[in-house]
Amino acid sequence: MSEETFDVIIVGAGVLGVATAYYMQKNNPNKKILLLERNLAAGQANTAMSAAAVRNMFASSTNQVLTDTSIKYFEHVQNELGHELLFEKTGYLWLLSKSQFEHESVQVWMQRMEKSGISYKVYNKEELKEMIPSLDVDFHDDEEAALMNLNEISYGLFGKDCGVLDPTRLVEYYFDAFKVISHVKPKFGCNVEKLLLEADPKLDLPNEPYVWQKKHITGVITNKGTFRAGTVVLATGAWANELLDPLGIDSKTKAKKRQMFVIHGEDNPKLIEFLNTKGFNEMGCIPFTILPSAGVYFRPQLQEKGFWIGCGDKIGRKYEYIQTDETMIPESSYYENSMYPVLSKYVSAFEGARPVNSWAGGYCYSPDSIPFVYEESGVIVVNGASGSGIMKADALGRIADALYRREKEAELFGGKKVSTTMLSIKDRDVEIESVVI
Amino acid sequence: MSEETFDVIIVGAGVLGVATAYYMQKNNPNKKILLLERNLAAGQANTAMSAAAVRNMFASSTNQVLTDTSIKYFEHVQNELGHELLFEKTGYLWLLSKSQFEHESVQVWMQRMEKSGISYKVYNKEELKEMIPSLDVDFHDDEEAALMNLNEISYGLFGKDCGVLDPTRLVEYYFDAFKVISHVKPKFGCNVEKLLLEADPKLDLPNEPYVWQKKHITGVITNKGTFRAGTVVLATGAWANELLDPLGIDSKTKAKKRQMFVIHGEDNPKLIEFLNTKGFNEMGCIPFTILPSAGVYFRPQLQEKGFWIGCGDKIGRKYEYIQTDETMIPESSYYENSMYPVLSKYVSAFEGARPVNSWAGGYCYSPDSIPFVYEESGVIVVNGASGSGIMKADALGRIADALYRREKEAELFGGKKVSTTMLSIKDRDVEIESVVI
Repeated sequence: MSEETFDVIIVGAGVLGVATAYYMQKNNPNKKILLLERNLAAGQANTAMSAAAVRNMFASSTNQVLTDTSIKYFEHVQNELGHELLFEKTGYLWLLSKSQFEHESVQVWMQRMEKSGISYKVYNKEELKEMIPSLDVDFHDDEEAALMNLNEISYGLFGKDCGVLDPTRLVEYYFDAFKVISHVKPKFGCNVEKLLLEADPKLDLPNEPYVWQKKHITGVITNKGTFRAGTVVLATGAWANELLDPLGIDSKTKAKKRQMFVIHGEDNPKLIEFLNTKGFNEMGCIPFTILPSAGVYFRPQLQEKGFWIGCGDKIGRKYEYIQTDETMIPESSYYENSMYPVLSKYVSAFEGARPVNSWAGGYCYSPDSIPFVYEESGVIVVNGASGSGIMKADALGRIADALYRREKEAELFGGKKVSTTMLSIKDRDVEIESVVI
Repeated sequence: MSEETFDVIIVGAGVLGVATAYYMQKNNPNKKILLLERNLAAGQANTAMSAAAVRNMFASSTNQVLTDTSIKYFEHVQNELGHELLFEKTGYLWLLSKSQFEHESVQVWMQRMEKSGISYKVYNKEELKEMIPSLDVDFHDDEEAALMNLNEISYGLFGKDCGVLDPTRLVEYYFDAFKVISHVKPKFGCNVEKLLLEADPKLDLPNEPYVWQKKHITGVITNKGTFRAGTVVLATGAWANELLDPLGIDSKTKAKKRQMFVIHGEDNPKLIEFLNTKGFNEMGCIPFTILPSAGVYFRPQLQEKGFWIGCGDKIGRKYEYIQTDETMIPESSYYENSMYPVLSKYVSAFEGARPVNSWAGGYCYSPDSIPFVYEESGVIVVNGASGSGIMKADALGRIADALYRREKEAELFGGKKVSTTMLSIKDRDVEIESVVI
């Protein structure tokens, strides 16, 4: 087995890994940075499995700044640098019952968006009915809807600067930009089995390190050999525990399966009409929409004349502390029993709709729904994005790089500066996020 | 298989389970409360494996009130109710280097103890050397000590109201008090395999509950049948994840192995002399002592003329998210390589000391080193005591009972009232604890 040495090893070429790799190489041009990925290409694991929707409509000022600057950078990449990310400002539409809308958490959310200058608009029930004729807003005398605990729709909270993009193109943008300036060829099909925790200094005694020895992470053991580096970056999302637990480092994150089902509307004029709902955005399509019950949401797909349907199910969906292949298998019964009944009740155009495709991946929760970026014993961890890693990727990559350079502040796109330790565990300085899907 | 129904099922007859059972039955005299334990007696798992030291010397006002009231209750039980708990006020002695002592966290700790009226005393190096002749405080020109990163000892922080007790006797006290007033015979050898999460109302459809159904925990599936209850209490310590993860409830806790090694001093006059160090307490023995390096500590055992040696090792000791039997096996090499070198460097009387007994158990970490007591979907969780469940047991039992009774406040021993939700996840209102071993 070979044993090579680098300045930095980045584990994981998902969106957080490639963004971090790019900013680290850009700002440390002489460093040898090795990017490792166990799949055969970048961005093919959980990044590719997500809904890839992007929004700046968060309740915490922390997530607001991470997403707002990242989204503006994505626009810059697409419009000024000329890299097509298929970023479309479809907008985000939260449909809410009266009691949801009036809940303190939603009121605080709106106040904080106003304070931060994040654009949003409130629609009332009548406006929504007029704009989206096939939306059922009140379920009068519908016993089934009552049995299903479906909330009526009284308000819509709409953010015009939100939208959807193609996660593969975004990953490609960062990956290509990294490759141009990198000195080391990234390794694919390279699975990190273990992080190397070693005593400093090594005494060459059996079973080192002992409790009284200084110790830090000095590299990785992979199926392609052992690689050493001064700094190891973990951008492994839901897989972080598998590498950190054996070292006794608590990532504070854990994962759940999430699933996406694709509905096509070609043979369904009602669905096409619903997809082409006007008045919300320049594309003339229904926005990325979150229904007010059971966590069901959908993403419009103009190109494929259809929708991606997802669900942020909470209690009842098991946590998978260590992810397995089972995580990647979507369950058709889940669509049929849990998602479809909700979807078709709110939007009659979905009646009879059956998925033509589906996939599943791991969603990595942090305790406060704010990501982590921190250094611990020689490893920089970038994870816990809580379902919104893509929309925060640019900011997180810049913060991870600033942390590596031991800067006190990271400069985000547009010039805004944030503390490099604000997303750490020890010196965490964030607002708890309440608006997660 | 039988299927019985109760008002409350308490899972786990460790110290938190029996204290909760007692207060719940006492304050809800008509309720049928079933206590379940997978071992064949109460308090035989991790409760019995702990160092069973008790201290009110915490940095957070939260842990201060939980321990101070619990310890006073234990004194009351022993001195006024006449139940011998072998509670002895040996005191706690933290040995600290100059830089440790001057660190902001220790200064804040002392300030907060003063504010809360918690008694402590500072000894300087000269006083310590005089009181404990066999203590090595500065390692002059000792290359080995330098290689081992051993801190010199400049200060001792001593708390006279702290001490040690017999965990089995404490568990017996609560368990017996519960049995006297309980209507239901506790079940031992009863392993809870799964919590029952059911839809409300049940529709008798396949694979219920669906995402749009209301759902809550209605009972437990065990090796002795299914039992149902309006409320299930989880007092399973390090095992909580095994039951909560499948339901998608994040306990926020995780566990590590901890080990205890027993040293006897019968044939070692120096060790007996060290054990019988005068001046700290009424017993005339060395206090429960924490060394300033590597997390090594010891508990004096006057009756057995010896010591229990433990170590709060941090990085390098793996987290075991799901505990296994392996957790219960102590490692003699760990004593020899990691603990003994530190111990014998600081206290020469330990030179040559070999363990005559040892055991291991699981230590359940919470993110802020403060316990959890909360209700979620029909289950009340009492855990995450972070190595100090025994010394907080009385307060936690009272808070869990108050939560069950939907009281806003819980009255702790001595009359002090605290919010029943202060230890919850959603409305957590605690100070982060910095002084954990």
